[in-house]
Amino acid sequence: MSLALDAAAQDLLFRRAHTARSFTDEPVTDEQVRAIYDLIKLAPTAHNSSPLRVTLLRSTEAKERLLPLLSEKNRAQTAAAPLTAILSVDLRFHEKLPKLFPVVPGLKDVAYADPAGRAEAGVLSAGLQIGYFVLGVRAAGLAAGPMTGFDAGAVDKEFFGDGRQKALVVVNIGRPSATAYNPRLPRLDFEEAVTVL
Amino acid sequence: MSLALDAAAQDLLFRRAHTARSFTDEPVTDEQVRAIYDLIKLAPTAHNSSPLRVTLLRSTEAKERLLPLLSEKNRAQTAAAPLTAILSVDLRFHEKLPKLFPVVPGLKDVAYADPAGRAEAGVLSAGLQIGYFVLGVRAAGLAAGPMTGFDAGAVDKEFFGDGRQKALVVVNIGRPSATAYNPRLPRLDFEEAVTVL
Repeated sequence: MSLALDAAAQDLLFRRAHTARSFTDEPVTDEQVRAIYDLIKLAPTAHNSSPLRVTLLRSTEAKERLLPLLSEKNRAQTAAAPLTAILSVDLRFHEKLPKLFPVVPGLKDVAYADPAGRAEAGVLSAGLQIGYFVLGVRAAGLAAGPMTGFDAGAVDKEFFGDGRQKALVVVNIGRPSATAYNPRLPRLDFEEAVTVL
Repeated sequence: MSLALDAAAQDLLFRRAHTARSFTDEPVTDEQVRAIYDLIKLAPTAHNSSPLRVTLLRSTEAKERLLPLLSEKNRAQTAAAPLTAILSVDLRFHEKLPKLFPVVPGLKDVAYADPAGRAEAGVLSAGLQIGYFVLGVRAAGLAAGPMTGFDAGAVDKEFFGDGRQKALVVVNIGRPSATAYNPRLPRLDFEEAVTVL
């Protein structure tokens, strides 16, 4: 009632959507991934820095490099998922700022010279983009199964050997199977999460 | 074409939406904020940990405590915004896990005992939730003006003196004015952000 977003879209993105733990065999196409990216790339990040990087594990070989680095309970569902993506932050995202934020030409060197501060800013904006990505997968009519249960250091070494990227979330993507969803867990009440001053 | 989300919803959330820098005088109601929260609380976080906390600055007094802690270019737009929220992470979010993740009763002490690891996990999931929040504001037919240009340590001290919360993003919320939007900045091409293995 207080929302402008139509009910079907609310259901698709939030109300009927769930984290999926199993999927049908229907493949996720390159066109679908491109449509997801072209939608979510528009949502905001600090200084338009857009530090999220997506590594799609399309080949069996690529997925097999990941499986042993996942916590055991995440392996079978990932092995069976039509598509798995590693979502990471580019720790040198500032190199793209001359393209992404041309309005302040020197920003790359002024605001993001310090690697620790840059990493902190990058992880935060990449976190926002991971939120957008999950909703983008749902916007494509698919289900997402995001996971943080993996050995992040080992994933970085295996997939990002140059140290430039840091894995944050692994996400399975596909059409949910009939048994994909666990029951919805409780959420915090408004008063637990929101303070009015 | 590859998306299930209808075109009006795509426009509302992503394509026609922009970060807003000025707003009309129309107030943002408590009902709107509640509707936004009740929608976005459903989207996923690690272990359903839901670490985002929202501090709404409703009173003039509350907003005046924030203004001097913002970088100068963010002050006037925030002073004039109908509503401003501080989005923070609860660094002791694990205390809510017995409610939020009852399926693993001991999780609070097993996975999140270490404060540094807990903070890292909390910031990441709060980051996802900030992404959901921005889109939730847009779902309410409003515009969001998220900002990271503020003295985070000073905001924590002023608003979260007990050290329990850490401010991540400040966001102005309202109906956008006719001059609210800057031109859209470039985004990374698909090939710059996505790697296929």
